[in-house]
Amino acid sequence: MLYRVERGTVDDREYMSVALDHAKRGLGKVNPNPLVGAVIVRDGRIIATGHHDHFGGWHAERDALESAKRQGVSVRGATIYVTLEPCCHQGKQPPCTQALIDAGISRVVVGSADPNPLVAGKGIRQLRQAGIAVTEDVLRAECDAMNEIFLHYIVDRRPFVLLKYAMTLDGRIATASGASRWITGEPSRRRVHEDRNRFAAIMVGVGTVLADDPRLTCRIEHGHDPIRIICDGGMRTPLDSVVVTTARDTPTIIVTNPFDEHDEGVAERVGRYRDAGCEVLPVQTADDGHPSLPALMELLGARGIDSVMIEGGATLAWSALRSHVVDKIDAYIAPKLFGGESAPSPVGGEGVNTPDDCFHVTDPQVIRLGDDVLIEGGVSYVHRNR
Amino acid sequence: MLYRVERGTVDDREYMSVALDHAKRGLGKVNPNPLVGAVIVRDGRIIATGHHDHFGGWHAERDALESAKRQGVSVRGATIYVTLEPCCHQGKQPPCTQALIDAGISRVVVGSADPNPLVAGKGIRQLRQAGIAVTEDVLRAECDAMNEIFLHYIVDRRPFVLLKYAMTLDGRIATASGASRWITGEPSRRRVHEDRNRFAAIMVGVGTVLADDPRLTCRIEHGHDPIRIICDGGMRTPLDSVVVTTARDTPTIIVTNPFDEHDEGVAERVGRYRDAGCEVLPVQTADDGHPSLPALMELLGARGIDSVMIEGGATLAWSALRSHVVDKIDAYIAPKLFGGESAPSPVGGEGVNTPDDCFHVTDPQVIRLGDDVLIEGGVSYVHRNR
Repeated sequence: MLYRVERGTVDDREYMSVALDHAKRGLGKVNPNPLVGAVIVRDGRIIATGHHDHFGGWHAERDALESAKRQGVSVRGATIYVTLEPCCHQGKQPPCTQALIDAGISRVVVGSADPNPLVAGKGIRQLRQAGIAVTEDVLRAECDAMNEIFLHYIVDRRPFVLLKYAMTLDGRIATASGASRWITGEPSRRRVHEDRNRFAAIMVGVGTVLADDPRLTCRIEHGHDPIRIICDGGMRTPLDSVVVTTARDTPTIIVTNPFDEHDEGVAERVGRYRDAGCEVLPVQTADDGHPSLPALMELLGARGIDSVMIEGGATLAWSALRSHVVDKIDAYIAPKLFGGESAPSPVGGEGVNTPDDCFHVTDPQVIRLGDDVLIEGGVSYVHRNR
Repeated sequence: MLYRVERGTVDDREYMSVALDHAKRGLGKVNPNPLVGAVIVRDGRIIATGHHDHFGGWHAERDALESAKRQGVSVRGATIYVTLEPCCHQGKQPPCTQALIDAGISRVVVGSADPNPLVAGKGIRQLRQAGIAVTEDVLRAECDAMNEIFLHYIVDRRPFVLLKYAMTLDGRIATASGASRWITGEPSRRRVHEDRNRFAAIMVGVGTVLADDPRLTCRIEHGHDPIRIICDGGMRTPLDSVVVTTARDTPTIIVTNPFDEHDEGVAERVGRYRDAGCEVLPVQTADDGHPSLPALMELLGARGIDSVMIEGGATLAWSALRSHVVDKIDAYIAPKLFGGESAPSPVGGEGVNTPDDCFHVTDPQVIRLGDDVLIEGGVSYVHRNR
């Protein structure tokens, strides 16, 4: 959704931008809740700020109100900027709308609307009925983008799936000999680790484990390690691989094809993974012989995993595209050329037959990261050329 | 070369920009001469414009002076903006510097310097000695970019070589079945035809002829068709291919490995190409078994071909990179995904062994063309990571 007409005054957008910054303090800690920030302003001055800090913590509005209270500052007649429409339902806490009304706030400026179509607008109606002025959609595109995961998951109940890859300008994710460290530069790799912090889970195919033996953790200070998911129909993940040996520190799920636990060899293999601290999760087999990714996403969604970042390799990327589970593409492109007829490209498998059968990347955005270029966009599963 | 500090006044840059526009009227007609535009300004008003229109035609300065004369306008005391340092040597015409002095021009504003290190600055010195004010390097980056071909050829005497390819966001130049029409959109394809107009020659490997049977002409109105060069060591280009059957309209050169004309079969094959109007050009064989591209570039340079655009396919692209003949890369990237382990990528061959052995694309520029993204840059043949 694009909101090209800017809503609110220049000041409104300025304060909302501060609220966005505060919201991001919850990155990696609030899933599957949204990131929310709030700023309380009176007489052209910020008197309190707040954010949703972690799952189970205060909502941003209440955090800001409490901050004002602690400072002994009255918020009567003040304006609150909040990146997401305030909630109006009784949860563990009384609804935020009531708290704002009780505190004597006179104006509420909102970024994103509540994505749940059944409740959307209800909070705002309550505020207006209490005589509070409300301005909606201020920096909405930015607020929506920050919560792309939440806005997807709350409606779909399946994880938001990002397919990420790093390739050379001639489309290679490794040299012909299989070497891939490093293709992109420091700013790109830093952004990938920010995404690992932001995403609930990271997924790779067993081929990537066999080739690179990666750790798949987040290397940002105080960052959150995503749950590691290895797509491994035939249980080929080595017992001495890093993802297995560190499974007690960072959860690791090995997704396999259905198996028979009565088969002694299989049972022993599964037992060893479990002894190492891994979860072994059998999923129905798709028609390409790999574990069904749509079925997997259902299972993950049901246990509150709101987001999965697919980081390799080419076979898994193709499975994900052909089964339509990818919501977003991040293609990092380094200004390098590898060449090599047998050097791998980011998406393998069978591929499409004709150009008209391609998957379209929608609304592509171009971001410079040092010398690298990131192209990101959604994926359309409708053949536009037909 | 980058000139990040802007030279001249805002007005100077404005007039130089008009001179650049005029220069481009010679696109496709001046090779191997430079594109040059000139604008004469007095009292804040453009009183005459000129450009180098075609090989053998007037220089831009003289074209502008003659235009003023035809209109009966005096240029005494006026300023001339010229995209390239005026020449100071006697050619078919008296030197431009003398013409400017004789006409009573009082100030000369220059974009690019003369690239020939032996004469560079001499024209400007002559003008200053005659009491004319000279400002150099105004919009120099733009002026240099417009004449990238000339500035290379005049120094090197080998053609300026552009490697151009169009790929999907997952690095494919065709689907697994070999289909490639079309990957990019209209604005990208239009720009490729502008380059075909600008370049003296276009080169493809025989594999591209066999797969696509392309015409390789410029489809811009009044555009210039580049000379077609088919890199075809074993003379596999079909006699009924478009490049052969239309060779009498648009020159076609078939570049082969050395052959023995006494061999009857070979002689007959060569004879047929020649009968169809093609030139057959044997070149020494490189160590990869294909015709040597450095040797070919020497031959082409010696006959005044100042620029070659390589348009496919992956094997030729690799030969060109490994033999260090590529000066510039234009990678057109469409927001589409093909997938396909066997779908080709833009650069084939053996490829580099490790990421550190890669070819670096220097000073990458990102240009949006509709939904497509063009990344262009130079190529460094120095291994920076070692």
